[in-house]
Amino acid sequence: MVSTSTDISSLETPPRCYADFCLVPVGTGKLSVAEEVAAVQRLLKASGLKYTMHSAGTTVEGSWDEVMRAIGQAHTVVHQTGAQRIQTSMRVGTRTDKTQTAEDKVKRVEDILANGEK
Amino acid sequence: MVSTSTDISSLETPPRCYADFCLVPVGTGKLSVAEEVAAVQRLLKASGLKYTMHSAGTTVEGSWDEVMRAIGQAHTVVHQTGAQRIQTSMRVGTRTDKTQTAEDKVKRVEDILANGEK
Amino acid sequence: MVSTSTDISSLETPPRCYADFCLVPVGTGKLSVAEEVAAVQRLLKASGLKYTMHSAGTTVEGSWDEVMRAIGQAHTVVHQTGAQRIQTSMRVGTRTDKTQTAEDKVKRVEDILANGEK
Amino acid sequence: MVSTSTDISSLETPPRCYADFCLVPVGTGKLSVAEEVAAVQRLLKASGLKYTMHSAGTTVEGSWDEVMRAIGQAHTVVHQTGAQRIQTSMRVGTRTDKTQTAEDKVKRVEDILANGEK
Repeated sequence: MVSTSTDISSLETPPRCYADFCLVPVGTGKLSVAEEVAAVQRLLKASGLKYTMHSAGTTVEGSWDEVMRAIGQAHTVVHQTGAQRIQTSMRVGTRTDKTQTAEDKVKRVEDILANGEK
Repeated sequence: MVSTSTDISSLETPPRCYADFCLVPVGTGKLSVAEEVAAVQRLLKASGLKYTMHSAGTTVEGSWDEVMRAIGQAHTVVHQTGAQRIQTSMRVGTRTDKTQTAEDKVKRVEDILANGEK
Repeated sequence: MVSTSTDISSLETPPRCYADFCLVPVGTGKLSVAEEVAAVQRLLKASGLKYTMHSAGTTVEGSWDEVMRAIGQAHTVVHQTGAQRIQTSMRVGTRTDKTQTAEDKVKRVEDILANGEK
Repeated sequence: MVSTSTDISSLETPPRCYADFCLVPVGTGKLSVAEEVAAVQRLLKASGLKYTMHSAGTTVEGSWDEVMRAIGQAHTVVHQTGAQRIQTSMRVGTRTDKTQTAEDKVKRVEDILANGEK
């Protein structure tokens, strides 16, 4: 097992990750969060990262640093709309065995379902 | 604010909820989880609940009890495939002001983006 | 692998699970959620389930059905305080190999750290 | 509402955040994750950030960039132990109204419970 000595400054973050996040502004007095979600989508578009929105969150792909920076900037953008508190729920996956896109993941499951594999 | 007396047996769970979950088998020695995800999709189909799979999870709609029962059964189904440990990450939303479907949520954001609202 | 036939009514949910959740009221206009969290703690106490609060959520142990019912009732209690929308983030674990309590899990890690195992 | 022009390079990430995460190695063939969790605790100690472990995750406090870098390094450290796939569930909170520590949050709820406020 790896030794984690005191100097961790040279330890890299993963070159690639897969993050799905759902950002919730708290204390705004507004029940709808659609405008905030739209602001985040515009930010992600400007980031150049690959992303897809679904009904329960947004999935972003890229290097760990790029993806986390974009989600942090999303907090900043939503704070700028007036929300003083934000809570985000996130799932992040990394793997070293292969590169797998969002499409690959869904297609793999759909193939199993179509073929009736058990 | 509401009083929570000792007897909570009559307290209902929400009639409707919106849950997005990602189930991960642990300790199986297999990197792919596609077969387990496919087994869960078959279960959800059999449940009669409304659900959609995306690349980072699956979203299910229904009453709190129905949805949580289905996700619990998903754990059971995946345990039956041999996984001895399972970890699920879940987001669940409930609201009392209105009923909003998955499609409604996405469409609302897309409309804002299309209209260039800020 | 298991067959999931159309009839899933006899499929049980796990007899034991471990859930950590963080409930966020949305659209209340209040930045603090401490009162809502306190209401949830009172509910959990009344439920008879084993639970512990920490700074980022609350961990509950029990059967899948009991735990999910309690968290659903927590949504109801917080809706009754006036919150019309609630978003909860949850992690749930189940295992079939052994029973492990919250204390066990923390102690196991602390032992490794104390022994300098790598 | 804020304009998100094409240039987002000057947009900062939050100066402070509060993250609770649970990291799960996938496909290792080992049911226990205690050694991996211990490796992450050693890394966090070396990071100089404030953190606390509980039975369902670890909470870290610091600037957005520092905290996300540390969690990314945690993925790297666990990949170095041999895990080829890692899935992390995370909750991150930011607020602009005040600074609140982990202890503050828990104490606020305990005070409400002790005073019998409703």
